[in-house]
Amino acid sequence: MILPAFSAAIDRLPKTTPFVPPEALERRSGVPITLRLGANESLFGASPAAVATLRATAPEVWMYPDAEAHDLRQALAAHHSVSADCVLIGAGIDGLLDIFARLFAAPGAGVITTLGGYPTFAYHARAAGGDIVEVPYADGRVPLKMLAAQAQAHKARLVYLSNPDNPSGSWHGASAIRQFAKALPENCALLLDEAYAELAPPDTADADLSDLPHVIRLRTFSKAYGLAGLRVGYALAHPDILAGADRVRNHFGMGRPAMAAAQAALGDRTWLAETLKDIAQSREAVGMALSAAGLRLLPSATNFVTAETGRGRGYAEALLADLLTRGVFVRKPAAPPLDGCIRVTLPPVEVVPCFAEALQASLKALG
Amino acid sequence: MILPAFSAAIDRLPKTTPFVPPEALERRSGVPITLRLGANESLFGASPAAVATLRATAPEVWMYPDAEAHDLRQALAAHHSVSADCVLIGAGIDGLLDIFARLFAAPGAGVITTLGGYPTFAYHARAAGGDIVEVPYADGRVPLKMLAAQAQAHKARLVYLSNPDNPSGSWHGASAIRQFAKALPENCALLLDEAYAELAPPDTADADLSDLPHVIRLRTFSKAYGLAGLRVGYALAHPDILAGADRVRNHFGMGRPAMAAAQAALGDRTWLAETLKDIAQSREAVGMALSAAGLRLLPSATNFVTAETGRGRGYAEALLADLLTRGVFVRKPAAPPLDGCIRVTLPPVEVVPCFAEALQASLKALG
Repeated sequence: MILPAFSAAIDRLPKTTPFVPPEALERRSGVPITLRLGANESLFGASPAAVATLRATAPEVWMYPDAEAHDLRQALAAHHSVSADCVLIGAGIDGLLDIFARLFAAPGAGVITTLGGYPTFAYHARAAGGDIVEVPYADGRVPLKMLAAQAQAHKARLVYLSNPDNPSGSWHGASAIRQFAKALPENCALLLDEAYAELAPPDTADADLSDLPHVIRLRTFSKAYGLAGLRVGYALAHPDILAGADRVRNHFGMGRPAMAAAQAALGDRTWLAETLKDIAQSREAVGMALSAAGLRLLPSATNFVTAETGRGRGYAEALLADLLTRGVFVRKPAAPPLDGCIRVTLPPVEVVPCFAEALQASLKALG
Repeated sequence: MILPAFSAAIDRLPKTTPFVPPEALERRSGVPITLRLGANESLFGASPAAVATLRATAPEVWMYPDAEAHDLRQALAAHHSVSADCVLIGAGIDGLLDIFARLFAAPGAGVITTLGGYPTFAYHARAAGGDIVEVPYADGRVPLKMLAAQAQAHKARLVYLSNPDNPSGSWHGASAIRQFAKALPENCALLLDEAYAELAPPDTADADLSDLPHVIRLRTFSKAYGLAGLRVGYALAHPDILAGADRVRNHFGMGRPAMAAAQAALGDRTWLAETLKDIAQSREAVGMALSAAGLRLLPSATNFVTAETGRGRGYAEALLADLLTRGVFVRKPAAPPLDGCIRVTLPPVEVVPCFAEALQASLKALG
């Protein structure tokens, strides 16, 4: 017997890996990572309530999860003042990107995203068959007018917008987002990735888009809530769109303790408010360290800071490689015009001097 | 703005739900389920080592999982005496069914499965676009010759075989499986769902199929290992097939504590051996209870027993509904010729009298 061939559409897909995990970098370099500042995880950890829930529910793991995710959806619906049928739980925003790509990005469908933006969206949209059009950043931000113009030009069926944006850290306010959503062609869904929403100004995080049924908002417990290891994201969207997701999703795909822990984290508002203050303080400290090292800061409404080395892609790549030899894991934007930048996840302020020291040493080593 | 339309292929998909979870049955009936015997979970619980690992790793949940699942894959590779590039981790076997359906069941591709077999396979294969051909059970077993004949007739690209089988409980030995795999057409992948492998006779569980590169074996931590709530399954297959999975899968989709707990469970062989003995004892006890109630047992190499009421589908459905009013959750095969059966997950023997009592009461109530 011989190996069976993949379907033609699969065969055409490039062999890409959206991100190499830090564990793999450690295995390949042999150097242990002591400062994990590359994946925009929350180094402030998870809510103690979430950790306690994980411990308490451990003996219940023999049970399958509730495929309807009833309790977590009810809690999220109450939190966002929507009905529960407007909430879908998924395996992180990545898992939701896969689902919505399959619903709208059929072979040949026009799909618009940002060049050098979050690569996992393009990865899933390409796997679904979509024709990807990538629009470069302008002035360090996602150029909404250009995105809308390309969406119109290609009669796009799906547009991806990260707001606040990763990897630039930039953001647009509610009125700009509303205007953008309305400027898209008919029959086009907008995937609004709000992974960093809790870290953004209220005007961005709390934008009312409820009158725009083609907007699918994506949120996650992986960033501010500090639960990246549990893979819990959610979509806020029109019930008719979410009914489509029920035709392709892995109904029993969510972990049972993961959903319980996410619900506990959602309820721990005092802890979240304190953490957001700590992150803001760290943003100042990391910003100062980067500026002191001669890098130019981009404004950030996230749990990371992106900064321009001013010396191009090769230099930024060499800087990352040198930092890694010092046990510091950092990532960078992949495409021009931001590919001379590095992107640093915000750690507790106590840790910032270690990072600053490693950065100075790496810059000196590179000359 | 109006709602965007789904892609045509999505629009054509039926609105099906593979399984209604017991939590939803509770919510709709208002009756709490006290005996959860319908989902083939392990009522014997998880390995204490797995529970301890979940508790110990709880504070680490702020970190994303290792997208390469290095440690768990190494452990599984050692356990199965294969190389790690023959192992893929997925969100339960369900998540893996989705991935392999996408690789092989393109629109129009012939796909063969068992009528009334595990519905989640057909759900995902249909979503991928495959043309599903369903072959009925014969004599309470999956009729391998008929499946192979249909695969040849339809030049199938993908065949699904559950062995030991759910929902019948039946199984085929290694030589029958090898002969079946060799009787499939060229360019056809065989998805061999071995969710219940640990519970099967060694001839079935340890079948050597390593010379058949079109066979993809699927295993899970949800059954014998008692970790259904964590959603960890794995595929054993040729590295070239698994490389294709890397083009569509959610690379960071697996929970970090889930993988650590699965690895702990895999290492706890003494606990597993004891649990398998307990399950065998329960199989006897539940079998006796079903026989005493006048049902005819089908042989089982799994953690459940299927039994024929002999009074048809409507009666079996009424029996399930009545059991539910008594807090007993049980499921049944969905299609003829097994749709007059009920399927009972094996609980600890101490619990069997409660089940037997409820069964007798329900049968009496139905008359």
